[in-house]
Amino acid sequence: MSELRQDPTTREWVIIAPERAKRPQQKPKGKHVEELPDRDKSCPFCPGNESQTPDEVFRIPVSSEDSDWEVRVVPNRFAALTSEGGMARRLDGHFSRKMSGFGAHEVIIESPSHNTPTALMTYQQVEKVLIAYRQRYNALKKNRQLKFIIIFKNYGWASGTSLLHPHSQLVATPIMTPYYHHRFNVAHNYYADVGSCLYCDLLANELEKGERIVAEAKEFVVLHPYASRVPWETWIIPKMHRASFGLLPAKHLAELAMVLKDSLFCLHRELDNPAYNLMIDTATTEDEEDPYYHWHIRIVPRLTTIAGFEMGSGIYISTALPEETARLMKQCAISLPEEECLSFKQKV
Amino acid sequence: MSELRQDPTTREWVIIAPERAKRPQQKPKGKHVEELPDRDKSCPFCPGNESQTPDEVFRIPVSSEDSDWEVRVVPNRFAALTSEGGMARRLDGHFSRKMSGFGAHEVIIESPSHNTPTALMTYQQVEKVLIAYRQRYNALKKNRQLKFIIIFKNYGWASGTSLLHPHSQLVATPIMTPYYHHRFNVAHNYYADVGSCLYCDLLANELEKGERIVAEAKEFVVLHPYASRVPWETWIIPKMHRASFGLLPAKHLAELAMVLKDSLFCLHRELDNPAYNLMIDTATTEDEEDPYYHWHIRIVPRLTTIAGFEMGSGIYISTALPEETARLMKQCAISLPEEECLSFKQKV
Repeated sequence: MSELRQDPTTREWVIIAPERAKRPQQKPKGKHVEELPDRDKSCPFCPGNESQTPDEVFRIPVSSEDSDWEVRVVPNRFAALTSEGGMARRLDGHFSRKMSGFGAHEVIIESPSHNTPTALMTYQQVEKVLIAYRQRYNALKKNRQLKFIIIFKNYGWASGTSLLHPHSQLVATPIMTPYYHHRFNVAHNYYADVGSCLYCDLLANELEKGERIVAEAKEFVVLHPYASRVPWETWIIPKMHRASFGLLPAKHLAELAMVLKDSLFCLHRELDNPAYNLMIDTATTEDEEDPYYHWHIRIVPRLTTIAGFEMGSGIYISTALPEETARLMKQCAISLPEEECLSFKQKV
Repeated sequence: MSELRQDPTTREWVIIAPERAKRPQQKPKGKHVEELPDRDKSCPFCPGNESQTPDEVFRIPVSSEDSDWEVRVVPNRFAALTSEGGMARRLDGHFSRKMSGFGAHEVIIESPSHNTPTALMTYQQVEKVLIAYRQRYNALKKNRQLKFIIIFKNYGWASGTSLLHPHSQLVATPIMTPYYHHRFNVAHNYYADVGSCLYCDLLANELEKGERIVAEAKEFVVLHPYASRVPWETWIIPKMHRASFGLLPAKHLAELAMVLKDSLFCLHRELDNPAYNLMIDTATTEDEEDPYYHWHIRIVPRLTTIAGFEMGSGIYISTALPEETARLMKQCAISLPEEECLSFKQKV
């Protein structure tokens, strides 16, 4: 029998219905992600095609004398938001409010290699990607007109990506996003009631229970949330309370790179290279010092399609128990050679 | 340049960025929906395979002596929610709330024909589908434990369907859904301020402006919303104020069938048989008589994939102006032979 579970961070309900995994599928199964060459001449993110992107805003070079690069950040050529236009909100007739598409939209090109997904990169390379995330986040937040900075990654066609070269994106908006507004409200109400951070307390509770914990590193915990919206949804939560990703101490980047790479690697192995979305959930730039929020990473494998029920109700139906998928993900780490999945094997 | 628009029914912002329609796509383009036979022996919804579904809860027979049917409604064999279990909500540890998967999940098989999409059905057939929707809605709402009844349709693989035979679904939940909760709040606040129904006022305003109106029939209006989340998002709004779909007068069903079929037919022609989701947005069974809400139908073509930005922020990026798509859809109706798209051509 299925059950309904309420996510304590959103108060939204999820239907967990493992029976539905057995339903007949007429849909033809394709390979999740196709085989790719190491370089693709038609790819604007491959080395040699640097002129096809706007000018870099950040780069990590191979060495100081070299023109080769390891990570590049460029403005998105087809930006959803740009630095043109102003912040004014105006009524468009009696009912509707609008403003110009002010903001920023950047692409983090994660590696010169066209065909190395983040899950298979070295720890060092993933750390460089995270350095770029943090650097751009903190550079953009200096513009006080940018209220919210979201970093995300679409991997594989089913995730909504339009290019396959390993890349992430950053969008800075002049408005508070509705999902943050809602999560902030929930956490703020919790704080008003209990006097502490919802996520800190949740983390302590999950660590005590243990059944949804995939791995505990020194500074970060990997878990499958109680009300997972999709099978194998994976959260990485820092133990240190910080509302904003921008306040992540630089000395924690190396461990976060290990934990992130190991998480993606286990998903890659267990789900046969799945498409996924990765989002960094963080506070607005104005709420950085708040006791109410707690930044974290959400990884959402795209094994199924968001359909009419989810779009109409806001309730997700998942076909897997997070206790079960967390156990399988932990086992995956144990089964690997000693030198792989290091962060999942460390003793805290 | 892009712009941000706020949806007056949700207060959520959408980025309208027509420039992004030009970005390079490496993704291989498949046909939206494949060619199908009129009957498929392996399809559980085709005539002759009635024993593969649970027993019918509703049927429209071809004639009273006949075992043939035109519409069937059956419980979903792989139901997300069932009539087992109770309504009790309990704390699962300190943080988490759960309840058993109580509710109902039904399938409306729209036609014996395996390969006639709703867009190409006769007006009479679509009316029978709507009769089934309304009948099941009103039958289920008598169970006071079912708080919310959502009817929806997933058409084409990109919509998340698992079977291609024309069908819709109905899910009845013991909880208020988060999207309704949010939309109700917005409409309730509007009522508190202005003293009238947000949707009634919005409709009057749109009819006065006219630029996003696709068609106006006697009882229903078809429009593209000001802050369309996706290109060609289409709403059908009844002129008569009713919070709940269950209170739609039976005498309006024939016109709604025409308006719905004509809407789907124009989308089918203009977008080359697109995948789409259709949702009936309605009040909870407890709010049926409310002045605050106003049921309506939303049709969401799935031309793009919901990606990390939407999942992380709740902000959608659309690449088309609704004024432009509404104009194209109106033109489509004008270009058709006189006997097609009747409801879009009528003079009110």
